[in-house]
Amino acid sequence: MINKNAPHPLYHQVKDHLEAKIVSGEWPKGFQIPTEKELAERFEVSTITIKRAVLELVHQGVLYRQRGKGTFVTSKKETDLQSLVTLKYGQKEGVKHPHHTKEFHTQEANLLIAKLLEVDEEDKVYKLSRIKMNDSMPIGLEYTYLPVKLLPDLKEEMIQDELLYSVLQNHYSIELGKAKIYFSTLTANEAEAELLQIPVGEQLFVIERFTRTVQGEVIEYSKFIVRQEHYQFYIEVNI
Amino acid sequence: MINKNAPHPLYHQVKDHLEAKIVSGEWPKGFQIPTEKELAERFEVSTITIKRAVLELVHQGVLYRQRGKGTFVTSKKETDLQSLVTLKYGQKEGVKHPHHTKEFHTQEANLLIAKLLEVDEEDKVYKLSRIKMNDSMPIGLEYTYLPVKLLPDLKEEMIQDELLYSVLQNHYSIELGKAKIYFSTLTANEAEAELLQIPVGEQLFVIERFTRTVQGEVIEYSKFIVRQEHYQFYIEVNI
Repeated sequence: MINKNAPHPLYHQVKDHLEAKIVSGEWPKGFQIPTEKELAERFEVSTITIKRAVLELVHQGVLYRQRGKGTFVTSKKETDLQSLVTLKYGQKEGVKHPHHTKEFHTQEANLLIAKLLEVDEEDKVYKLSRIKMNDSMPIGLEYTYLPVKLLPDLKEEMIQDELLYSVLQNHYSIELGKAKIYFSTLTANEAEAELLQIPVGEQLFVIERFTRTVQGEVIEYSKFIVRQEHYQFYIEVNI
Repeated sequence: MINKNAPHPLYHQVKDHLEAKIVSGEWPKGFQIPTEKELAERFEVSTITIKRAVLELVHQGVLYRQRGKGTFVTSKKETDLQSLVTLKYGQKEGVKHPHHTKEFHTQEANLLIAKLLEVDEEDKVYKLSRIKMNDSMPIGLEYTYLPVKLLPDLKEEMIQDELLYSVLQNHYSIELGKAKIYFSTLTANEAEAELLQIPVGEQLFVIERFTRTVQGEVIEYSKFIVRQEHYQFYIEVNI
């Protein structure tokens, strides 16, 4: 199988073989791959070569490691980015993936939040922190800030089971205009790692959403921090 | 400035102060921040505290480090994801950010490419590898695969200065249908690090694009690997 006289490195060949098993479906999504020792025996190469090939596939996101358990074929849920801002998705979503509320209170907007919500630093804002769960596993952190003056008397119960956009439209009769959604990543710090039960330093996806009313006021700023293992984000566009 | 008797850690306070300087514009985009020693003196805390605050902001992508140069306020170009699939953007783009072609040839589709392009493993495909430049700095790697049977006699010169979508439409009279764009990240391996002149292990954005004709055939698969320092991707949606 492996040609030890080929010009390109051995681990490239091993990587190609492993990739072929995944692409062909011989190793399906979620499958636990054999140990490095087993693979080294099967391919008749050193475990160092196997390690390097596996590491490349981990770095590419094709495989992932679970500490103390082994190495698995990545299985991500395809998620349409547009669905993050539609109500239809949200209504199903709220039931399927409940939130655990950590914080809900009003506070003065600090410099950063004031800038994001386009309010004054002394203006009051609601701060909502939630953990998104999936089968009792934490999969994401959500931080939402809302201007108090546009949403008087918002109560935690109102957003407990209902989607935020529904509350804005139905309880406050706010006409929503546009949402702008930014993408980035961050390296989990201690607090994030603890909340998500992951190692410090894991790369996480960050989605920031600004929602404006049809009048152009910022009605919401949210920051979603989600595990990459769980989502494969995409958009689909007509050309 | 710093309250040493406050209940939350000192580095949190330092981080808040640094963030305020950035948000207020006192430290503008691209600004080189003072050294850790200078900051430690200014805030009257240890350099360990400063290091930790700075590291958190680096992990959040607010600051970035350049080896041997110092720490800077991140300055990213806002890039509309939709623009990746419009011709208007591309035409300007081709001139402003030229490509350096590394590879252009036909080959047999291997298992992975065959699956992605929905062709047989024995079918011929074009492989195009390019480096995207900005002011003679490499900022991204682009790998494109195209099915030969739908695009006979494609020549390197044809796509040298013209955008791929224009070539498909104008030279081949292909009606483009939908594009699906996936988002992920990867950790730079040695080859990628060398091509992009960055350290091994840097987190890179990966954008994969599948383009279909109106008949539904996959006409193109591209993988763009870009530096996070240079782009802030977003989409804007009407609600």
